[in-house]
Amino acid sequence: MIAEDLFEELSTILGPKGLLTDPAEMTPFVTDFRNRRTGSALAVLLPATTAEAAAAVRAVTARKIAIFPQGGNTGLCYGTVPQSGVVIGLRRMRALRETDARSGLISVDAGVTLAELHAEAERLGMQFPLYLGSEGTAQIGGLISTNAGGTGVLRYGSMRDLIAGVEVVLADGQVVNEMSGLRKNNTGYSLTQLVAGAEGTLGIVTAAVVRLAPRMNSRAHAWLGLESVEAALEVGNRVRAAFGSQIEALELLDRAEANYVLRHIPGVRMPLSDVPLYSLMIELASPASHDDLTPQLEAVLAAAMEEGLISDAVIAQSEQQAHDIWHFRHSVTEANKINGIGVVLDTSVRPSAIPAFIEAADRITADRFPEAERAIVAHLADGNVHYIVMFPHEVWASYPDKPAKELEVEHAIHDVAAAHGGSFSAEHGIGRKLTSEMARLIDPVRLDVMQRIKSALDPDGLMNPGALLPEA
Amino acid sequence: MIAEDLFEELSTILGPKGLLTDPAEMTPFVTDFRNRRTGSALAVLLPATTAEAAAAVRAVTARKIAIFPQGGNTGLCYGTVPQSGVVIGLRRMRALRETDARSGLISVDAGVTLAELHAEAERLGMQFPLYLGSEGTAQIGGLISTNAGGTGVLRYGSMRDLIAGVEVVLADGQVVNEMSGLRKNNTGYSLTQLVAGAEGTLGIVTAAVVRLAPRMNSRAHAWLGLESVEAALEVGNRVRAAFGSQIEALELLDRAEANYVLRHIPGVRMPLSDVPLYSLMIELASPASHDDLTPQLEAVLAAAMEEGLISDAVIAQSEQQAHDIWHFRHSVTEANKINGIGVVLDTSVRPSAIPAFIEAADRITADRFPEAERAIVAHLADGNVHYIVMFPHEVWASYPDKPAKELEVEHAIHDVAAAHGGSFSAEHGIGRKLTSEMARLIDPVRLDVMQRIKSALDPDGLMNPGALLPEA
Repeated sequence: MIAEDLFEELSTILGPKGLLTDPAEMTPFVTDFRNRRTGSALAVLLPATTAEAAAAVRAVTARKIAIFPQGGNTGLCYGTVPQSGVVIGLRRMRALRETDARSGLISVDAGVTLAELHAEAERLGMQFPLYLGSEGTAQIGGLISTNAGGTGVLRYGSMRDLIAGVEVVLADGQVVNEMSGLRKNNTGYSLTQLVAGAEGTLGIVTAAVVRLAPRMNSRAHAWLGLESVEAALEVGNRVRAAFGSQIEALELLDRAEANYVLRHIPGVRMPLSDVPLYSLMIELASPASHDDLTPQLEAVLAAAMEEGLISDAVIAQSEQQAHDIWHFRHSVTEANKINGIGVVLDTSVRPSAIPAFIEAADRITADRFPEAERAIVAHLADGNVHYIVMFPHEVWASYPDKPAKELEVEHAIHDVAAAHGGSFSAEHGIGRKLTSEMARLIDPVRLDVMQRIKSALDPDGLMNPGALLPEA
Repeated sequence: MIAEDLFEELSTILGPKGLLTDPAEMTPFVTDFRNRRTGSALAVLLPATTAEAAAAVRAVTARKIAIFPQGGNTGLCYGTVPQSGVVIGLRRMRALRETDARSGLISVDAGVTLAELHAEAERLGMQFPLYLGSEGTAQIGGLISTNAGGTGVLRYGSMRDLIAGVEVVLADGQVVNEMSGLRKNNTGYSLTQLVAGAEGTLGIVTAAVVRLAPRMNSRAHAWLGLESVEAALEVGNRVRAAFGSQIEALELLDRAEANYVLRHIPGVRMPLSDVPLYSLMIELASPASHDDLTPQLEAVLAAAMEEGLISDAVIAQSEQQAHDIWHFRHSVTEANKINGIGVVLDTSVRPSAIPAFIEAADRITADRFPEAERAIVAHLADGNVHYIVMFPHEVWASYPDKPAKELEVEHAIHDVAAAHGGSFSAEHGIGRKLTSEMARLIDPVRLDVMQRIKSALDPDGLMNPGALLPEA
């Protein structure tokens, strides 16, 4: 009864394109993109404007029905899988609202994809410096709500650092507008920073102003072989001291991970003659076309090599070599999928704690999961270590309760991260996957503060319930 | 009665050095540093540790007495002037808790001064890139609570961008610890970002982890003469496109401001032969000692000059010349004080809106305050325009109600900023000076959200009441 009345109201607000109730049409909205988890929903709402979104939210929450906001649905933690209630998808809100090249700002609807934003920034002779695999599908609103990371965080920060403001529809249908796009604005609490990473639990991001960076016109790439994580850290710090904010990427792979790529991805080449214990990929970039970064990088690395910190090194001398280096790095996810079942941890620690963290995690892995192999992909200078416990397919197939096994691995490595002052979710977020870890590992005072903020903005708990925060 | 009992408890918690009740001793704590406004307090509490601070807060708020947190008391908006209740000063909390050079992090008590932090960063071969005049007195906690800005915001961000975490004592005496110092940590709402700029209204910042940047080893400085703000903006954008994150400062002065400096500060020299309509100061810096930025800057500026964007330019060829340029810029505040009574607005707009904003403000000034002169000091690329309405001393002396006059000027220029999508408080904050402007100019929905967050964390309204948020 309630539903019928609601559908009528929603249909008036959203029009025929804005309301899906056919189960078949709803399927992609109630399932995560890797098809691992399915939920259910009364309807999927696809507003085309902020006004429609606000009116729809008001209609739904007035009836105490829950709302599940959804961007490109590329998350890894089931943050957009609904449990009931209605899904609000942002994909029809894809206007480039305003381009302000002289201020280095673009205002966009939340449903604009990262790839579309990259193209628009490019058109203006600049760049939007967030780089991750799902750019063709991931939407700006979702990237903000999950505070997305990627390979450019060292230089440019995460999504929260790249936005100059947001527009948010609150649970009561009110619209908060922080779209002024000002670099400096000390007029009270920043709701923009509060909703960044809030995973839709405080409101729906319907638009944002993003900050552009200058386009890079000269680059240098290197691939180093090292004998230890310690050495990689030391080399990383020397490169930082020498090049500072010119560093685009400092990516670490261990030998196991490099071997997966070589084994499974046709045409990929290891830049060095042997597969080293650790590989460190470096990219420098400068907007100045006159900057000759390659010889400068060569000089810094030569000194480190002389001291024995680096065992082998290749500095790209051509665009092709640079491309090969990135191709190797980007092949990691694909290679892992073919190689086996990798439980990929999204841990972070302070950079100084990385060696001890990996050593301790290795001990736990060898002890408790001897049938698995450890692999590492790390954004080194951010302290974001994707520690991977890799099980052969046939071993994994033999486990009767696979989710339990996954949980066991996660708990074990998360505990190691916690013991080293680290986090169990560096960039992937919490979603519905890690709420129990929030309850287990987060300082109760922090959690209490979060719950109080949540209650203040969403007193009935209707915005993406079940995500991010553990049930009270 | 209540007070007696409270003092006994506080004396036990804080010891004799931690509790001031003698009015003479309390005077500097109840008065702003420019001696413009005085309040009153029952006592001044000076905890030496977080545990003492937490216990003291609990003792005070349990009795529904208000707390007024105070850092270095260098604010311009009366944010630390108490109205009653007790002041909690952080000056005895000045431990450098931990130095983690390999992670580029320092953990400090909130009472450490900016100058002390600069020295420690220097000792590690790095820098803490927040630069402002009051560094010898301003404390880290206060800098966070006011989200301080300064001249380095373009490259490094404001204080909120330079912290990797905080420790906060809440109104109920609970301590929130976000001191992990992780670059990437997506485990829920960021309380660190919420208290940045909250002016002590949500809790007391008692410690922080700050991020260091590499030390700069090569620099270039230029002083340009330009005929218009438009030209300055265009030159600024070209310098950004060419040098990106190597720009340390892009500071704009108008002719009036340059004349004040030349007139009142002995030994200062205008780098150009004439005083131009607008002066643009540029500093570039790189951590690489091999970077020869000066000829690179020369090339970019030569091209702009050929197109007629720049009328005159000096590029520093010696450390002395570079020093002279900064000395000129740093003499602004002193010169203004001698020259007259300047009502200094802390407005910001998008960079693209700066020319129209200044033009409109000039019309208002000429029309409504013809006895004053307009002067401008702007952090150009941040859009932060300190528009100054400068009254001769004798004219100001003739106004019967000076505060009313000041308010009249502020309202007039704030309205112009608002009409251009801007803010009336870019970096100085709100304090007790601008709460009425919050009520007048801030979107009521934003304000409502702030009030709800405030109530969630401080239900009795005991943390710095009267600051930041207008009374409901």
